[in-house]
Amino acid sequence: MNDPVRSAATTPRSREPDALDRYGLRARVSAELSAFLDGQEALLSQVSTDLEPVVAALRDFLDGGKRMRPAFCYWGWRAAGARDGSAEPAALRAAASLELLQASALIHDDYIDGSDTRRGAPAIHRRFERLHRDGGWEGEPERFGAAAAVLLGDITLTWCDELFTRCGLDPARIHAARPVFDLMRSEVMAGQYLDVLAQARGLSVSTPRETLERARTVLRYKSAKYTIERPLQLGAALATGAADDPLAAALSRYGLPLGEAFQLRDDVLGVFGDPAATGKPAGDDLREGKQTVLVALAAQRATDAQAKALRAGLGDPRLDAAGVEQLCSVIADTGALAEVETRIGELTRDALAALGEASMDEEAREVLGELAHAATARHG
Amino acid sequence: MNDPVRSAATTPRSREPDALDRYGLRARVSAELSAFLDGQEALLSQVSTDLEPVVAALRDFLDGGKRMRPAFCYWGWRAAGARDGSAEPAALRAAASLELLQASALIHDDYIDGSDTRRGAPAIHRRFERLHRDGGWEGEPERFGAAAAVLLGDITLTWCDELFTRCGLDPARIHAARPVFDLMRSEVMAGQYLDVLAQARGLSVSTPRETLERARTVLRYKSAKYTIERPLQLGAALATGAADDPLAAALSRYGLPLGEAFQLRDDVLGVFGDPAATGKPAGDDLREGKQTVLVALAAQRATDAQAKALRAGLGDPRLDAAGVEQLCSVIADTGALAEVETRIGELTRDALAALGEASMDEEAREVLGELAHAATARHG
Repeated sequence: MNDPVRSAATTPRSREPDALDRYGLRARVSAELSAFLDGQEALLSQVSTDLEPVVAALRDFLDGGKRMRPAFCYWGWRAAGARDGSAEPAALRAAASLELLQASALIHDDYIDGSDTRRGAPAIHRRFERLHRDGGWEGEPERFGAAAAVLLGDITLTWCDELFTRCGLDPARIHAARPVFDLMRSEVMAGQYLDVLAQARGLSVSTPRETLERARTVLRYKSAKYTIERPLQLGAALATGAADDPLAAALSRYGLPLGEAFQLRDDVLGVFGDPAATGKPAGDDLREGKQTVLVALAAQRATDAQAKALRAGLGDPRLDAAGVEQLCSVIADTGALAEVETRIGELTRDALAALGEASMDEEAREVLGELAHAATARHG
Repeated sequence: MNDPVRSAATTPRSREPDALDRYGLRARVSAELSAFLDGQEALLSQVSTDLEPVVAALRDFLDGGKRMRPAFCYWGWRAAGARDGSAEPAALRAAASLELLQASALIHDDYIDGSDTRRGAPAIHRRFERLHRDGGWEGEPERFGAAAAVLLGDITLTWCDELFTRCGLDPARIHAARPVFDLMRSEVMAGQYLDVLAQARGLSVSTPRETLERARTVLRYKSAKYTIERPLQLGAALATGAADDPLAAALSRYGLPLGEAFQLRDDVLGVFGDPAATGKPAGDDLREGKQTVLVALAAQRATDAQAKALRAGLGDPRLDAAGVEQLCSVIADTGALAEVETRIGELTRDALAALGEASMDEEAREVLGELAHAATARHG
């Protein structure tokens, strides 16, 4: 799962306004997370001072991130016409809780994928391996790192619903939004399992058509719905007190294609992106054997020689720079890259068309239009 | 309550009434979990039929278990005087959700500890390793098993709060009980981290006094509070709509010592228990290097020769039957076993004394008295 670097907070790259940061959302989300962690730290310090490294690691980890899901949740709430002064901080707090879900998913994902870095810093399991080594403790540092990553991801996962539930909105309203919240979590975890399964089956076991179909399912559930459609609908449900209404359907018509375009952009960046902008080493997605739609399309369009190169290199943890370069050429030469770029354009246009037709708050419409560009035209 | 359903799973070992099963609680908890899984299965089947093994594994996993936490939650609810007909099934559903939290903790714990079996069946990570091998898939079966265990534990963790929140009680009442629910989850995860940390530090790095103090913290947070005190208080809060009242304090005076006695009994069974009754191979706790209070007491009381044997054998994954036997002798010969047995008796008496003084529903008092014996005088 890719969640490219934090850098946008300090170095705007394009001439576009930073839609993710209107009303200072990014800093406000960070402040909510920080305040929440302060409370948890106070609680855990009563249990044992040995828990300090846990909170410190989560604090550092949560410091990164573009706050994309909170932004979509917030603008879903605003799309429903909500902007009441006293409820606004509570809605923002509910939106901020999605960063905890994302952090949990990334911590576990990095361990599952064996990724060494995240957001330019060591992955959580590597950080705790280091703690073990520095302490000169017993047993294998890798096992301690694994255990810590599992448990830190778990605690972050429960803290997501704790912050969401305690956001301060009326309990009846939070309760009404729960079906979206619950569905979002089940979907993203199901998508992650299917992603792991797809990698295990690899390119050899399945036909190119099966591989592509599975890659599309993973893209939809692990990423598209989870990143844009569900956060938007969650925000709207918090405002309307209804999980299923015309606005939810309209937000789906905008959010689902946009989410797919977002993930296709992520797939492209995962192979062709600049490591300085993505925060992940070049070729990591290829070494991990990620069965993305981009790769599945390349496999489907490949000549025998190209298919052989793809099967040999994909998922090889020792793939070097030349090997990465060769796979990049295959993906470009088959036309898979061009097809994905075309598809990103189509999906973004579909999303914007649906946005234009939807009945919603005008400022929300404007910002969601800008967010569509931010999600699909980014570099990291 | 009329027409209680009898549990087929009940095979009482002693002359005592099976307090865990009064009102057919065990079968009713199982029925709630089964109905909940039916709903999730229907939802996931819309994502992909590849998710069938996930639900099947969780169904099998949840089939085991004594339903101890749901029973304490239910009787906490009853202790507050609640027994209203229409709310009773909803309260039971909230209680049943605790089995999902426990399943999540066990799935992740078994993976972290490298345990092969749980409840007499393969641990989840082993089950999915097998799926990988049977499918002839790519990559290492162990990595696939690890990924599946992490993700199945995650989904079960979110399903716990989904079932809890959707139990059907008034949202305001659920909301009022959330502080207990949240605290319980943070405490058990903090306790698990501290347990892993204690094993990493081992007997060599720390003094016997430090080891014992840490073992007591782990016992309290990973087990005692989580198994008895918090479930009781959660049930009471669902009934009273208040997380912090005199009943909560009284339940703590009963639940905390009883929880400690329960875990001390578990420590003893983990070393001296009959594998046929515990469902875990003899000596597993010793091979895993668990830093229990029992082991910490033995370390504190050991002669130099005994301490050397303890340090050498504890945490050795290749420890054979003779090695297990030797460690058992050390633990008995130091007097640690006798001290723990004495402490179990004292704690149980403290719990029963507090129960006698508390102001609560009389039937709940009677059942909680029986549960105190069930939790501490058990064999598996």
